[in-house]
Amino acid sequence: MGADSAHSEESGTRALLCEMLRLFYDKGWVSGTGGGICASLTEGRLLVAPTGVHKERVEPADLFLIDPGTGDVIGSAADAALRPSECTPIFSAIVRAGAGAVVHSHALSAVLAGDAAKGSVLTIESLEMLKGLPEVSNTDVHFVPVIENAEHEPELTSDVERALSEERFSSARAIVVRDHGAYIWGRDIWEAKKHTEVYHFLFEATVARRH
Amino acid sequence: MGADSAHSEESGTRALLCEMLRLFYDKGWVSGTGGGICASLTEGRLLVAPTGVHKERVEPADLFLIDPGTGDVIGSAADAALRPSECTPIFSAIVRAGAGAVVHSHALSAVLAGDAAKGSVLTIESLEMLKGLPEVSNTDVHFVPVIENAEHEPELTSDVERALSEERFSSARAIVVRDHGAYIWGRDIWEAKKHTEVYHFLFEATVARRH
Amino acid sequence: MGADSAHSEESGTRALLCEMLRLFYDKGWVSGTGGGICASLTEGRLLVAPTGVHKERVEPADLFLIDPGTGDVIGSAADAALRPSECTPIFSAIVRAGAGAVVHSHALSAVLAGDAAKGSVLTIESLEMLKGLPEVSNTDVHFVPVIENAEHEPELTSDVERALSEERFSSARAIVVRDHGAYIWGRDIWEAKKHTEVYHFLFEATVARRH
Amino acid sequence: MGADSAHSEESGTRALLCEMLRLFYDKGWVSGTGGGICASLTEGRLLVAPTGVHKERVEPADLFLIDPGTGDVIGSAADAALRPSECTPIFSAIVRAGAGAVVHSHALSAVLAGDAAKGSVLTIESLEMLKGLPEVSNTDVHFVPVIENAEHEPELTSDVERALSEERFSSARAIVVRDHGAYIWGRDIWEAKKHTEVYHFLFEATVARRH
Repeated sequence: MGADSAHSEESGTRALLCEMLRLFYDKGWVSGTGGGICASLTEGRLLVAPTGVHKERVEPADLFLIDPGTGDVIGSAADAALRPSECTPIFSAIVRAGAGAVVHSHALSAVLAGDAAKGSVLTIESLEMLKGLPEVSNTDVHFVPVIENAEHEPELTSDVERALSEERFSSARAIVVRDHGAYIWGRDIWEAKKHTEVYHFLFEATVARRH
Repeated sequence: MGADSAHSEESGTRALLCEMLRLFYDKGWVSGTGGGICASLTEGRLLVAPTGVHKERVEPADLFLIDPGTGDVIGSAADAALRPSECTPIFSAIVRAGAGAVVHSHALSAVLAGDAAKGSVLTIESLEMLKGLPEVSNTDVHFVPVIENAEHEPELTSDVERALSEERFSSARAIVVRDHGAYIWGRDIWEAKKHTEVYHFLFEATVARRH
Repeated sequence: MGADSAHSEESGTRALLCEMLRLFYDKGWVSGTGGGICASLTEGRLLVAPTGVHKERVEPADLFLIDPGTGDVIGSAADAALRPSECTPIFSAIVRAGAGAVVHSHALSAVLAGDAAKGSVLTIESLEMLKGLPEVSNTDVHFVPVIENAEHEPELTSDVERALSEERFSSARAIVVRDHGAYIWGRDIWEAKKHTEVYHFLFEATVARRH
Repeated sequence: MGADSAHSEESGTRALLCEMLRLFYDKGWVSGTGGGICASLTEGRLLVAPTGVHKERVEPADLFLIDPGTGDVIGSAADAALRPSECTPIFSAIVRAGAGAVVHSHALSAVLAGDAAKGSVLTIESLEMLKGLPEVSNTDVHFVPVIENAEHEPELTSDVERALSEERFSSARAIVVRDHGAYIWGRDIWEAKKHTEVYHFLFEATVARRH
C-alpha cells in the first residue's frame, strides 16, 4: 500500500469509527462517556478512541494510534488533553488474537445478561440471530465467556486473554464483563458492527426470556 | 405500461424499499444484517434485498430482480459480491399467494410472541389495532400461524406454503417463525409497511399482556 | 380576523398538525396508520387528519375542514381518495365540550393502562407529572374515564359525551378506550401536545408500578 | 474576562443549554414541559430555562439570568410571557454548594428508582458505570439521597440543602425526589450531561435488577 492510500485508509477509518460511536450512542450502548471502539489499519497500527469523553462527540483527530503488540502510543490525538481509552490493553489483546475491530459496550442489556449467566458462561440457544456469528448455527448452543469486573480496566486483560484462548469459547465474538458491559469484535469495523448488533439482540432476548 | 414508466416504477420501488429498510432498522426490526424486504413490479418481477449486509445501508442498485415463479435471478445487483436474500424462496411463495410486498422482521417482539404462542397458532384478540388488517374486526379472534425454525431459511418454504393455504389463517398477513422473527406482507409496499407496524404492535401487546 | 390572517392561521395550523403527527409517530403513538389529530380554527371550523393513511406522511393539503357542530365536511382534502378520520364525531364532541385540539393515541401504554384500570376509572396518584394538567396537584387523586371499545369508532361517541359530562372526571383531559388507546385534548395544539406527553408518562408509570 | 468574551461565553452557554434540552427530550427525560436545566457563567450569574414550556423548543433568548445568591431575576427572557423555572431556588442551592450546571429530570426511571429506594437513601452498587462519578469506584456502595415530594417545588429547597450537607451523600451528584424525578449536577454543562446519563443508567439498572 502506498503512502497515499495508507493515508486515505486511515482518514476513512477515523471517520467511520466516529460514525459508529454516534450510532451506538443513539442506541444507548456508550452513554455517560462509557464504552469505546478501536480498529486496526492494514499495516498493523490500532486506532483507539479517547477515554472519559462523550463518545458521540469524538472527532477523527481525537483518536490515538497504538502499537497493539506493546500497547504503546505511537500517534497522539490532536488535543493534548486527551488520553487513550482505558481499554487499550484489552483492545490490543483482542486484536493480537485476530480481531480487526473491537467495540466496548456499556449497554444495560449486557449487564443484565451477565446477571443471567451461570458462573463464567452465558449460554445462548434457540435463536436465529446466532447465525449472525461466523460458523454458528441457530441449532448450536453458544457459549459466551463472562469475566468478573475489576477496579481498573487493565486488570481485566489476563482474564480476557484466558477467555480468548479457551476452546469452548472459540466461536464467541464477545466477552461479557459482569456489572460492566461487553467487548465485541469482528475482522473489521463492519463485522464488528454486525456482531455488536447481533449480541445486543441476544442479550436482550436472554433477559426477556428469563422473565 | 411503456418502457419509460416501467423504468420509473422500478427506480421508485428500489428507492422506497431502501427507505423502508432504514425505517425498520431504526425500529430495531432488521438489526445485525438480519431481516429483509421484497416488492413485485407491475409486470411480475420481484425486487429483493441482498443477504448478509447491513440493511439500513442497502442502496437501490444493490437489489436483485427475481422471477417469483421460479426463484431465478433475472437481474443481479450492481455489486457482484452481493447475493440475493436467503428468504427469496419464501418471498416468492408469499408473492405467488397474492402479496405484492413482503417484510422479513427479526424483531425481538416477534420472537417473544412466538414463545407466547400455543403450538402452531398465535391467538390475538381484544385489540383495536386488529382493524389495521383487511376485513379483520377488533371483535375477531385472529389466528397467526407459527412455524418452527429450520437450519436453512429455504427449508421453511413448505411450512410457509402450508400456512398460506390453511383456511383458519385466511385473514392473517403474517407468519411467525419461532426463535426467528416473522414474515409480514401486503398488496404493495405501503400496505406491507402498515401491516408490519400493526403486527409489531400486536406482538408487543401480546408479550406485555402475558406479564 | 381578516381573510389574510385567517388564511395564515389555517396554513400554520395545517403544518403544525402534520409536525405533531410525525412527532407522535416517532414515539410509537400513531403507528400502523392508527391514531389521529384535529385542531379548531379561531372561527370554529375543525381541521381533521384523514383516516387509514400513514400518519407521519400526512401533508397539510390532506386535512379536512369539518363543522364540529354537525360533523359535516365543509372542506375536502386535495386528494379525492382521502376520507376524514373515523374519529370525527368523537373529535367534534370533545371540541363542543371546550377543547381546541384533540389527539387520538394508539399507544400500547394507553391500552395497558386501560387493562390496569378498575372498571370505568383509571386512578392516578402520587406523581409530580399530574401538575402538567390544569388545576391538578401532585397530591390529588386523579380520575380518568375508561370506556369500552366498540366495533365502529363513531359508536363510542355517546360514551365519550357521557364521560365528558361527569363531575368526577372534570379535571381529566383524556379518555381511555379499553383495548384501543386514548383521546387526549387541550385548549390548543400546544396544550394538547403537553397533555399527550403528560398522559403517556402517567400511563407508563401506572403500568410500571403495577409490576 | 473582557466584555466580548463574557458575551461570547453567555451566548455559547445559552445555545448549549438549549441543545441539551433537545437531547434530553429525545431521551424522554423532560417531556410534557417537565424538567429543566441551568448553568452558571464565569462571573457567577445563573442561566435558567423557563417554566411550563415545551423544553425541546426553548430558544437561547428564552433563558433567564438569575443571581444564585438571592434567587433574584437579573435578566429576563426576551418573551415577557415567560417565567423562570419553578426549580430556581433549588438550582440556586445546588450551585451555591459548588455545582456549575444542574439538570432537573422528569424521567420515569428516576421515579421508579425512588420507589425502589428504602426510606431516604437509594443504594447503588456493583456497576462499572459508578466510575462515571468523581472519585467513585465500581467497588463502592454509593448512596443517593431521596427526598419526599412537595406540592410546590420551592418547598423542596430545605430538604435539598440538608441532603447536600450530609456526609454520607458527599459523593452523590444527584438527589432523587420521590414520585417526581431527580436533580443531577456537575461542575459544568458537560459534566452535568455525563452525570445525567450515568445516573439514568444507574436508575434503569436498579429498576431492572429488582425484577
